[in-house]
Amino acid sequence: MERIFDKELNALKERLLYMGSMAQGMIRVAIKGLVERDESILEEVFKNEEEVNHLQIEIDDMAMRLLALRQPMAVDLRFIAASIKINSELERIADQAVNVCQNTQVLLKYPLLKPLIDIPRMAEIAQKMLNDSLEAFVNRDPDQAQVTLAEDDKLDGLKDQIFRELLTYMISDPTTVQRALCLILISRNLERIGDHATNVCEDVIYMVQGRDIRHPQKPSTPMKFH
Amino acid sequence: MERIFDKELNALKERLLYMGSMAQGMIRVAIKGLVERDESILEEVFKNEEEVNHLQIEIDDMAMRLLALRQPMAVDLRFIAASIKINSELERIADQAVNVCQNTQVLLKYPLLKPLIDIPRMAEIAQKMLNDSLEAFVNRDPDQAQVTLAEDDKLDGLKDQIFRELLTYMISDPTTVQRALCLILISRNLERIGDHATNVCEDVIYMVQGRDIRHPQKPSTPMKFH
Repeated sequence: MERIFDKELNALKERLLYMGSMAQGMIRVAIKGLVERDESILEEVFKNEEEVNHLQIEIDDMAMRLLALRQPMAVDLRFIAASIKINSELERIADQAVNVCQNTQVLLKYPLLKPLIDIPRMAEIAQKMLNDSLEAFVNRDPDQAQVTLAEDDKLDGLKDQIFRELLTYMISDPTTVQRALCLILISRNLERIGDHATNVCEDVIYMVQGRDIRHPQKPSTPMKFH
Repeated sequence: MERIFDKELNALKERLLYMGSMAQGMIRVAIKGLVERDESILEEVFKNEEEVNHLQIEIDDMAMRLLALRQPMAVDLRFIAASIKINSELERIADQAVNVCQNTQVLLKYPLLKPLIDIPRMAEIAQKMLNDSLEAFVNRDPDQAQVTLAEDDKLDGLKDQIFRELLTYMISDPTTVQRALCLILISRNLERIGDHATNVCEDVIYMVQGRDIRHPQKPSTPMKFH
């Protein structure tokens, strides 16, 4: 019995990792389409969204079945609960990749506003955060989760920088408004991916340590757009 | 034993409803501060955010304890799983109310751009969706959940309408860019609240019918900002 249950837990983990690699691929491809200004590249992301949606339901079902049939305790219970939460984060990450594509489709109707530097950097950080958060999950490594968490500040900083720069464009030249807005929204999509990866890290820490690290006293930043 | 468990499930439900009413109040107060252009009103929302964060952890702990100690089956298991998910949706709704306040704080630095009509309407729909989704949860009523789900289209329509209107402002008068952007972001905050209420409805339907209605074939709308 015990060994079958271990296999089942492993199968759950494998499916989650597969879903994570799909979500990561979707971010990469979305940004490739944006940087290369090639709308046809984006098709892959739209196609993969459907698979991710099916995966989410499949993984939820696996987890619920394990809860119902195996009545797991302690560490196994926390692993399954973490899987349910991480599953939902991964689906939201994939959604954000789709949103990047949709905003890119609008952007590509207009000529290039400026060479893209900060947005591809944001996308790299977001992908790395996702990758590292899932590694922390697999290795049950709260330290790695903590290190990954800290990366989120970089994303927030870049998002604010992009915002300020594009605001200047919009104010000084009204013909840039639509394009600048697209880029602002894309930077926010990427920032949200970082938020979801952060949530994965918090789930990992809770899973391993049984300690909830959500909602520490964070300094409020009332002067920014949110 | 059975009766204690029922009491525990009831306590979980009560805490969720309390959290839901807090989140709903936060939306109401945030929009009041926006409409009355009174920053001091927003303080209440920032204060309540902390309580909601504590509630989220408390409710998660209650649910995990029930899973571990009572090893629930079938309908009770689905109720607890739904509670964990709804808990997370409510916390995100409260976050969005905070974001409305933060965007309002920026907006209030500038003179009034135009009388607000569509944004208060969006806020009303969003609050009603939240309220109705929680009623559907309490009454285990999938029909009510389905009706509430459908309201989300209204929010999306209003968001697009607001976007188009404000884009015109920004393009024709650069001095409106910051204000218009604030209002666009607030409309997106409210739209997200509708998305979270939609997720609550889907969780209710899954809880009652054991049928997953997420991700039906939705028509793709590639020409809009996301």
